[in-house]
Amino acid sequence: VNFSPGPSALPLPVLEEAQATLVTLPEVGASPLEVSHRGSWFTGVIEEAEANLRELLAIPETHRVCFLQGGATLQFSMVPMNLLRGTGRAAAYVVTGSWSEKAVAEAEKEGRVRIAWTGREEGFVRVPDAAELDLPRDAAYAHVTTNETIQGVEFREIPAIDGAVPLVADASSDLLSRPMDLDRFGLLYGGAQKNAGPAGLTIVIVRDDLLERIPDGLGAMLDYRTFVRSSSLYNTPPVFAIYVVLLVTRWLRDEIGGLKAMADLNEEKASTLYSVIDEMPDVYRGHADPGSRSRMNVTFRTIRLPAGELDRAFVEQAEREGMIGLKGHRSVGGIRASIYNAVPLDGVRKLAAFMREFAAGIR
Amino acid sequence: VNFSPGPSALPLPVLEEAQATLVTLPEVGASPLEVSHRGSWFTGVIEEAEANLRELLAIPETHRVCFLQGGATLQFSMVPMNLLRGTGRAAAYVVTGSWSEKAVAEAEKEGRVRIAWTGREEGFVRVPDAAELDLPRDAAYAHVTTNETIQGVEFREIPAIDGAVPLVADASSDLLSRPMDLDRFGLLYGGAQKNAGPAGLTIVIVRDDLLERIPDGLGAMLDYRTFVRSSSLYNTPPVFAIYVVLLVTRWLRDEIGGLKAMADLNEEKASTLYSVIDEMPDVYRGHADPGSRSRMNVTFRTIRLPAGELDRAFVEQAEREGMIGLKGHRSVGGIRASIYNAVPLDGVRKLAAFMREFAAGIR
Repeated sequence: VNFSPGPSALPLPVLEEAQATLVTLPEVGASPLEVSHRGSWFTGVIEEAEANLRELLAIPETHRVCFLQGGATLQFSMVPMNLLRGTGRAAAYVVTGSWSEKAVAEAEKEGRVRIAWTGREEGFVRVPDAAELDLPRDAAYAHVTTNETIQGVEFREIPAIDGAVPLVADASSDLLSRPMDLDRFGLLYGGAQKNAGPAGLTIVIVRDDLLERIPDGLGAMLDYRTFVRSSSLYNTPPVFAIYVVLLVTRWLRDEIGGLKAMADLNEEKASTLYSVIDEMPDVYRGHADPGSRSRMNVTFRTIRLPAGELDRAFVEQAEREGMIGLKGHRSVGGIRASIYNAVPLDGVRKLAAFMREFAAGIR
Repeated sequence: VNFSPGPSALPLPVLEEAQATLVTLPEVGASPLEVSHRGSWFTGVIEEAEANLRELLAIPETHRVCFLQGGATLQFSMVPMNLLRGTGRAAAYVVTGSWSEKAVAEAEKEGRVRIAWTGREEGFVRVPDAAELDLPRDAAYAHVTTNETIQGVEFREIPAIDGAVPLVADASSDLLSRPMDLDRFGLLYGGAQKNAGPAGLTIVIVRDDLLERIPDGLGAMLDYRTFVRSSSLYNTPPVFAIYVVLLVTRWLRDEIGGLKAMADLNEEKASTLYSVIDEMPDVYRGHADPGSRSRMNVTFRTIRLPAGELDRAFVEQAEREGMIGLKGHRSVGGIRASIYNAVPLDGVRKLAAFMREFAAGIR
């Protein structure tokens, strides 16, 4: 079972279909790694990938879907280049963990940043309520990270913000894991490599009216309008990664039954692990406050001394039993089980059983 | 036979190996589409990919190899952001076709551009001699496009330039097609999707001393130093594309025998087609002057009237005989046979035979 934080597990039927066609797509006579991005096969792929994303996420007509490269980290720069540079305003950032902090560092290169809230002093164990946010009404935008992969804290509800301030979200690690109300977002972005596909593709969903705020003079590949106007075909896109996203979205629709069903399954997976943590407070301690617990990255540690040693033993024993990717991020330590869409419930139950056995062994 | 201009043919053994491991890498127990970029398997992949590139291209110790995303088009912006912005100098661009012109348009957003030479008025049929270049001795850098994919003109020899001016090259469409003297280049970049791998990966080779010129304040993903310092692992790289580059470089080394052997084969492929064109001046006309002919993209047209109609017939008949991707770029028209590394000599001979038959049919 692959509990890696990203790149992470992909659904087996997706891998099998990608494998079957990797040397030759029957309808083309060439590999998806070598077909033209201007040909009719790929035109069908990118159009259906977008249509499936629109259907799954109920993306409103007011929003464009773009396929970019460079990961969320490039978006940390592109968002303020497009929406902050030259405005004279501040951008408000809600800082809930390591990825929010990285986003702030990049935004500060482009303009003024106002920290609307930070959980740093508390150790990034929770997300804030709307009432806690220090959000100027004339902010260029408000930025949130819907799920913090490293700390394992997630917004169950995105706080209500003043409707005049565009809400921008890094949803890299929970995009497609559950329904999201896209109407509320001015711009939402995510690297594909958690729930949507392989590494090397970034999905950006942007509301039309924000395009009008973009200053002229940005590099073509750094200006969202380039991707909107060309339907993401200004230059050669990552053809194969988009094809895999197509297969993943078909799997979500046809095998899983849509994002509500996916969310229910993810909720069950997450509570399977959190309930073991809560059952055994003398052995395990969850990193996040219960109300802010991520359904994607379950972060916890063992609390027996010597600190850290049992965590290492946990990760090593789990790996011997076929469960990989469980080591916590070096900045937080401990254990992290990333249970993205493609991690099966059975695999999560296996980990829960292992957690009980491991606890019994050290008690 | 796949004569597409890019993404383009990949070697069959590479596709077969990628296919065999696509669901499960035996040594990892997971797909290359889902493994962690921090794990030992991928560490081995990226290190060997770099080592193979270094060996094949004889990259000197003074130069770093980086794996980026965004294609050459993002490099059109990154080069002047890193090497022109704030210098007060001009960057000199040698304009040999459509891609050079795009590079100029992006550079102009970042600073002053001096056109060292342009072939626009001649219709981009050739590359210039060193003596023709108007190159200021204090230029921030001189930029060339080693091969113009659309017009099919290529530098056989890169013109000598003043050693104090760093030479920057877009080598997207001939990188790895032949030996190149990397000592002469300050920075050389190329999208992978012609000779090196699939779309979604950009290879950048940069000389150490140029890193010292980079202004502070660039976005992390837009600053070459980020990639050098992190060995291209600052954020999640396009794991699978880098894996395919590894397989391609192994094929070049072990099956082809290195870049000199590859260059000889490419020369034979190109002359197989150009000799048909030269044999039949009453039917075909090559776009490029003979001394500037590309060994990667053979551009030509039929010269019988009505103009254009026979070109279309040529492309359609060839496609019926299993030769795809031959339509010339819309900006140039006519016919273009892209004969990158992975297009086999047999396939090129088949096209040459078809050219002779087609000519006989209309004479």
